Amino acid sequence: MPFDKMFESQLQALKDEGNYRYFADLTRRCGQHPRALNHHDGETREITVWCSNDYLGMGQHPDVVEAMASTARECGTGAGGTRNISGTQHQHLELEAELADLHGKEAALVFSSGYVSNWATLSTLGARLPNAVILSDALNHASMIEGIRHARCDKTIWKHNDPADLDAKLSRLPANATKIVAFESVYSMDGDIAPIDEICDVAEKHGALTYLDEVHAVGMYGPRGGGVAEEMGLMDRVTIIEGTLGKAYGTMGGYIAGSAAMCDFVRSFASGFIFTTALPPAIAAAATTSIRHLKVSDIERAQQRRQVARLRARLDAEGIPHERNPSHIIPVMVKDPVKCRMLSDYLMDQFGIYVQPINYPTVPKGTERLRFTPGPRHTVDDIDHLVRALSSLWKQCALARASA
Amino acid sequence: MPFDKMFESQLQALKDEGNYRYFADLTRRCGQHPRALNHHDGETREITVWCSNDYLGMGQHPDVVEAMASTARECGTGAGGTRNISGTQHQHLELEAELADLHGKEAALVFSSGYVSNWATLSTLGARLPNAVILSDALNHASMIEGIRHARCDKTIWKHNDPADLDAKLSRLPANATKIVAFESVYSMDGDIAPIDEICDVAEKHGALTYLDEVHAVGMYGPRGGGVAEEMGLMDRVTIIEGTLGKAYGTMGGYIAGSAAMCDFVRSFASGFIFTTALPPAIAAAATTSIRHLKVSDIERAQQRRQVARLRARLDAEGIPHERNPSHIIPVMVKDPVKCRMLSDYLMDQFGIYVQPINYPTVPKGTERLRFTPGPRHTVDDIDHLVRALSSLWKQCALARASA
Repeated sequence: MPFDKMFESQLQALKDEGNYRYFADLTRRCGQHPRALNHHDGETREITVWCSNDYLGMGQHPDVVEAMASTARECGTGAGGTRNISGTQHQHLELEAELADLHGKEAALVFSSGYVSNWATLSTLGARLPNAVILSDALNHASMIEGIRHARCDKTIWKHNDPADLDAKLSRLPANATKIVAFESVYSMDGDIAPIDEICDVAEKHGALTYLDEVHAVGMYGPRGGGVAEEMGLMDRVTIIEGTLGKAYGTMGGYIAGSAAMCDFVRSFASGFIFTTALPPAIAAAATTSIRHLKVSDIERAQQRRQVARLRARLDAEGIPHERNPSHIIPVMVKDPVKCRMLSDYLMDQFGIYVQPINYPTVPKGTERLRFTPGPRHTVDDIDHLVRALSSLWKQCALARASA
Repeated sequence: MPFDKMFESQLQALKDEGNYRYFADLTRRCGQHPRALNHHDGETREITVWCSNDYLGMGQHPDVVEAMASTARECGTGAGGTRNISGTQHQHLELEAELADLHGKEAALVFSSGYVSNWATLSTLGARLPNAVILSDALNHASMIEGIRHARCDKTIWKHNDPADLDAKLSRLPANATKIVAFESVYSMDGDIAPIDEICDVAEKHGALTYLDEVHAVGMYGPRGGGVAEEMGLMDRVTIIEGTLGKAYGTMGGYIAGSAAMCDFVRSFASGFIFTTALPPAIAAAATTSIRHLKVSDIERAQQRRQVARLRARLDAEGIPHERNPSHIIPVMVKDPVKCRMLSDYLMDQFGIYVQPINYPTVPKGTERLRFTPGPRHTVDDIDHLVRALSSLWKQCALARASA
C-alpha cells in the first residue's frame, strides 16, 4: 500500500528509540491468578504476572465469574443497542444504583470504559458549562487530557499534587468562570496520592467543581472500597467521582458518580455516552457482584496491603531501589527504555516473571520503569522468587543498589 | 449542589423542545429475542423489540452465549490491564486474525467499542500523517466527526454519498496533502448505502486513503458477512475497513482492518487504544464465535431480508409512509420530537411494541422518526401486529397516509 511507508517510518522511529511496544500474549486461567500462560515463539509456559491491574484478583472470584456466566446464559452476550435505543438493561440500572451507593452520591452513570468516562465527561463539562475553565493536575491521565483538549475550553495546568499552586491559579481566573478542578487520587505510574482534603479546601474557597479520578483506588481504599476519598472521609466534598470497573473490580467499564442533575446532564449531552453500544448485561452484573463483595469483604484489601509491605521490605533488604509512596504500586525506576525492556525480557525468560516495561507515552521519556503491583494472591514464595530474580539481575547487569 | 442549576437549566431546555430522552428499562432473555421484559412504574411485562441493533439475534445464539460463559469460567471476567500491560489475551489475537481474514486484510486491531475505533483511528491518522486532510461525508456518525475534530487537521465535508462533490473537493487540495476519505456503507438512520465503487474510483484518482465504516453492515452483507464492500467485491480497494462487534455480531467492541503497518501504527500511537483496559477475553471469544458462524451461515441473513421485505410490503399495503432504501433499516418519518415520542409511547402502552423515538442529536431536528429493524426472529405475526398497530395509530392520530 502506498501509505504504508508513512506508517513504517514513524514505527521505525519508535523502534530506534526503544519505545516500540511488544505485547505479551497471555491466557488467564480462572483460579490461577496471578499465574497465567504465556504464548511465545510457538511455545506456551506458565508465568507469574506482576503487573496486572486486576489488583485484587476479583476477575477470577467465583461469584463474579458466576454472575457473568449465568447472566450471559440468561440474557445473552450483548446489550443490543445504545443506552437510548433498546440497550438499557435492568443490569445497568442496578449497577448505577450500586455505584451511587458506593460513593454516597445521588446517581451514577456507566460508560464503556474508564477512558471514555473521563474523556466524555470532561469534554462535555468543558464544552457546555458557561465560561468553563478546567484546572488540570500536571500528571493527569491521558484520558483526562484528551477530554480537556476535546472540550476546547480554557484550561490551566497546576503543579502535580500542589494545592498552593492550584490556589494561585484559581485566584487568577475571572469571577464569572465555571471552574473545574480535575485530578486523580492514586497516580498509577508513581503511586503517589493526592492531598484531596487540601485540594477540596482550595476548590471550595474559589467555588470550583471538583472532578476526582479514583480508577486506581476504587475497590482497594476505604472501608467499602469507595476509594481514597472514602478512606479520608471526603466523598461528600468531591463533586464528581470517576472510577473504573476494569481494575480492582475485575471486569470492564467506567463510571461517574455525583448529583442526579450532573449525571442526567452528562447522560443527555455526552457524545461518547450517547452514540455507543451499552455494556453487555453480563459485564454489568459481574461488576455489580464485585462491588457488592468488596463493600463488605476486607480480606482482599488487607492481604494486598500485607504483600505490598512485604515486597517493599524485601526489596529494601536487597538494596533494590524503588519509589516510596503510600499506595499499592511499587515502581522500580530504570530510566532507559532499552534497559527497561532488557530487564523485563530477562525476568520473563529466565525467571518466568512477567512485568511489562513501562515506557513513553505512558511515562515521560527518561523515566522508564518496572511497575510491580503485588496482590492478595501473590504468595510469600512468589515475592521471594521475584526479589531473588531482581537481585541476581542487579548483580549481573551491575545496576546501582539503593544506598543504605 | 451549586452547579446543579447550570445542569438543570440545560436539561430543561431539552425537555421544552421534546428532546429529553427517557430510556426504556429492559431485560433481554436468551432464546426469546426479539421479546424482552420491560420494567416500568413498578410493573414488568413482555414486549417485542423493534429497534434492536442485535440485527440477527446473534447475541442469543447458543454457540456465542456458550463461548462467553465458558470463557468467563475458564479465564475470568476481565483482561486485567491495557493491551500493553498484561491485558493482551490469546482471545484478542484470535479475534484480530478472524477479522483480518473476514475483510481479506493483513491485520486487524480491536478497540473497546466502534465509537472508540472511529474516534481513535481518525484522530491518530489526522494528527500524525503529514499534511493530512480528512474528507468526511456530510452524514458521518458522531464518532467519526469527533475523531476528525480531535485530529485538528484540515478537513472538508463533502455532500452525502456524492462522488462528484468528493472529486471536486479532492481536486482543490494541494499535491502534498495526505488525503483521507472517510465514509460509511450503510447509514444507520436513513438506511441508504454509499456508492463505494465510485467513491473508490475518485479516491484512487487522487491518491487518497479510504476509510469505510461498515458498522451497520458487517455480519449482514456479503457472502461471509464482510459487509457491503464484500458484497460489491470492493474490500481490496478500501484502505481501512472499520466495524463493530456490538451490532450484528451481538457482543461488544469495535475494530479496524487493513495493512499490517497501518494497524501497527494505530496500535502504537492511538491514545484511545493504548490507555484503556482490553476487552474481556470472554467478549473476544464470543465475538470470534459469532463472526465464524456468520462466515458460513446465510440462514440469518436470508431470513432477515425476507422479513424486511415483508414489513415494507405490509406498510405499503396499509399506506404507512416509510423511506425507501436498499438496506435492512426502515425509517418511518414523524418530523416532530413530541409526536414521535407520543407514537412510541402508544405503541409500547397499547400494543407492547417497543420502538424508541429517534430524535436530536441522533438525527437533525425536524427529521425525528421511528426506525424499525426487522430481524430473522420477528415472526409473520409480529409483523402483522406491528402494521395493524401503526395503521390504527395513523387513523387515531389522523396522520398522513402514503399516496398510492
